[in-house]
Amino acid sequence: MQLYSYFRSSAAYRVRIALNLKGLPYEYLAVHLLKEGGQQLSADYRKVNPTALVPTLVDGDTVIGQSLAIIEYLEETHPQAPLLPADAAGRARVRDLALGIACDTHPLNNLRVLKYLKHTLGVDEAAKTAWYQHWVRQGLEALEAQLAGSAATGKFCHGDTPTMADLCLVPQVANARRFDCDLGAMPTVVRIDTACRELPAFDAAAPGNQPDAE
Amino acid sequence: MQLYSYFRSSAAYRVRIALNLKGLPYEYLAVHLLKEGGQQLSADYRKVNPTALVPTLVDGDTVIGQSLAIIEYLEETHPQAPLLPADAAGRARVRDLALGIACDTHPLNNLRVLKYLKHTLGVDEAAKTAWYQHWVRQGLEALEAQLAGSAATGKFCHGDTPTMADLCLVPQVANARRFDCDLGAMPTVVRIDTACRELPAFDAAAPGNQPDAE
Repeated sequence: MQLYSYFRSSAAYRVRIALNLKGLPYEYLAVHLLKEGGQQLSADYRKVNPTALVPTLVDGDTVIGQSLAIIEYLEETHPQAPLLPADAAGRARVRDLALGIACDTHPLNNLRVLKYLKHTLGVDEAAKTAWYQHWVRQGLEALEAQLAGSAATGKFCHGDTPTMADLCLVPQVANARRFDCDLGAMPTVVRIDTACRELPAFDAAAPGNQPDAE
Repeated sequence: MQLYSYFRSSAAYRVRIALNLKGLPYEYLAVHLLKEGGQQLSADYRKVNPTALVPTLVDGDTVIGQSLAIIEYLEETHPQAPLLPADAAGRARVRDLALGIACDTHPLNNLRVLKYLKHTLGVDEAAKTAWYQHWVRQGLEALEAQLAGSAATGKFCHGDTPTMADLCLVPQVANARRFDCDLGAMPTVVRIDTACRELPAFDAAAPGNQPDAE
């Protein structure tokens, strides 16, 4: 398998953790989101992934360009270690938590959005940072309420083994820290982030440990 | 089952189509996103869904607050009619298309984002509309490239029966039309939207046919 990735992309980070937890080796193909006006926007990359976003997983003839679609695919084709619980209600809870980050939190702070705010709307640095922190806070406060309010939360988001929800939580918390978001009101989120990052699979997937890290 | 819904919410619209295609009756609980400063922001609704977003599905003790998590749950608990293909590669393609809309297109134009642009950033109506159209165009152009470039595309997004991808496509196209987005460059998207809306399950789920429609 090959993974088109950028070390700082939190969507790629999710997939790297999944591949590591399942013990699947892969070739790392770096796509630099800032160099050459953004390598993800090149005609060559768009042939691989028309959305011009990272990551993309290539597994033979199968090409998948959405992090959660990739993780579901890996789960179906390589069931061990499982990243979803065995019961339908548990699976729904994990997907609910994961999608709350992947749909409602992360996309608002993606690079292309920050560029639009700055270059098209003329938003200054302070307002751009406030935008970033606003959506992170809203997303992680909701996540905290979901985690703290449920008996299904364990050492990790769902029980005591990492699931797809943890794969989304850790990269989102990394982004939050990078943009100086206050995590004081999210003790459960912070506790789970710490527990995850102690695992080698998460550590090896961290932005600073990628071949294209700067 | 009960569905907390708002007639214009495209995430709720996706779930309504899924419930109809599977022939599952449900109680419609209207959450008005504009009345009383937004009923979704009330303490009562936050107890049901801490993200303060619609939809939420309640199935006995199981409460799910993300449209794609709900659809995956319905698919697992009520396999007929199937909304995902039988093969892993096909399932990955459908999820890829669905998440391209649910993660990369729709969230940028959600009501709370448009409110932030207007009230916090002081963006005028014209710039707000340009923002809306920009992200719709970018999302639907990518979707068009994915659909037109694949032999797996049939009468619908994947083959000749509707899947989770079509459940996301139709509400997104409805939004695009509502905001006067030019769909001239997306003939495949438009063709599939038309084919879907001819089906009673899609028609019954349309915003104008909901009990809270205005």
